[in-house]
Amino acid sequence: MSFKIITISREFGSGGRAIGEMLAKELGYKFYDKEIIAKVAEESGLAEEYIAKRGEYSNGKSMLSYAFSGRTSTGMSIDDYVFKIQKGIIKELADGEPCVIVGRCADFILQDREDVFNVFICADMKEKINRVCMQYELGMAAAEKMINDMDKKRSVNYQYCTERKWAQAKNYDICLNSSDVGYDGCVSMIKSVVEK
Amino acid sequence: MSFKIITISREFGSGGRAIGEMLAKELGYKFYDKEIIAKVAEESGLAEEYIAKRGEYSNGKSMLSYAFSGRTSTGMSIDDYVFKIQKGIIKELADGEPCVIVGRCADFILQDREDVFNVFICADMKEKINRVCMQYELGMAAAEKMINDMDKKRSVNYQYCTERKWAQAKNYDICLNSSDVGYDGCVSMIKSVVEK
Repeated sequence: MSFKIITISREFGSGGRAIGEMLAKELGYKFYDKEIIAKVAEESGLAEEYIAKRGEYSNGKSMLSYAFSGRTSTGMSIDDYVFKIQKGIIKELADGEPCVIVGRCADFILQDREDVFNVFICADMKEKINRVCMQYELGMAAAEKMINDMDKKRSVNYQYCTERKWAQAKNYDICLNSSDVGYDGCVSMIKSVVEK
Repeated sequence: MSFKIITISREFGSGGRAIGEMLAKELGYKFYDKEIIAKVAEESGLAEEYIAKRGEYSNGKSMLSYAFSGRTSTGMSIDDYVFKIQKGIIKELADGEPCVIVGRCADFILQDREDVFNVFICADMKEKINRVCMQYELGMAAAEKMINDMDKKRSVNYQYCTERKWAQAKNYDICLNSSDVGYDGCVSMIKSVVEK
């Protein structure tokens, strides 16, 4: 079996995005991360900043606050509207050239295809904190809070959109702890299966 | 870093046990699975059959039925008593020769050691059903029910003993789907990290 599409789900600060980018380069695949935000923004007419926030971090509150909050002309909640467009765009990308897609429930959206390889990247908290401290110029306590907050939001968003739990080993073909395996190790392990 | 101990957690029917055994042979490590049951039985004075059932599949009901059910002379519930002995034996084994340990919350029990590499093996339901049909001479529906029941029990037992959720990617260094990667692929991937 050959895998045309690789989805990367990841804990915040685990290096999953960088690993996805390295992998795409090595395989000669397209790499989709922020491009998806731009496409969803274009198609929905909503601001990129808003999509970046809602496309992966909607808090599921729309189920409760639906009647009181933003509502599109179709009668859908805005979270549902964004997810619907995101779904269409990810399916369209998957029909195109071989690619690596980061986040955005792509593993769930593409579950009916047989040429998709799903990866989850996690890391030790200590390393995630160091990485987030440097990247966002934060102190250690603030970095840890940010990591926990972001992962909680990803988890709630994933469960809301997919009705299954985030970060469960069984939903992925391979899960790697980048602290143990290293970025290069992750790339070469995924590559060895995908190219087989 | 070198890893002296490899723990294998696995879905029922995923081939995790066989992969662990192959891995131990290739690395020249000891392999502990049923040996642990025998040791717990010997130390606790309880029957091996009973330990096999309770050591990994206690249903956590002891929390509720504690007052009405089996109670040891120490005042502990029997599930707690079995887990306490199991914990001691696994720690003792880990202090000995390099080894592969299958199941029994070993990943949690040995979490304070730095030389432990934690693996989780899952597989596609179709393959798990085929494997269980052959191994236990069951029909497909009965096999699927057995798989779901066993994993549910493992999950409840793990949560009861460890207070964390079973099969969460973040609790393992590597999680592999044996249907995609193959038994040999799983062994060589784990080996490549452990020997590094």
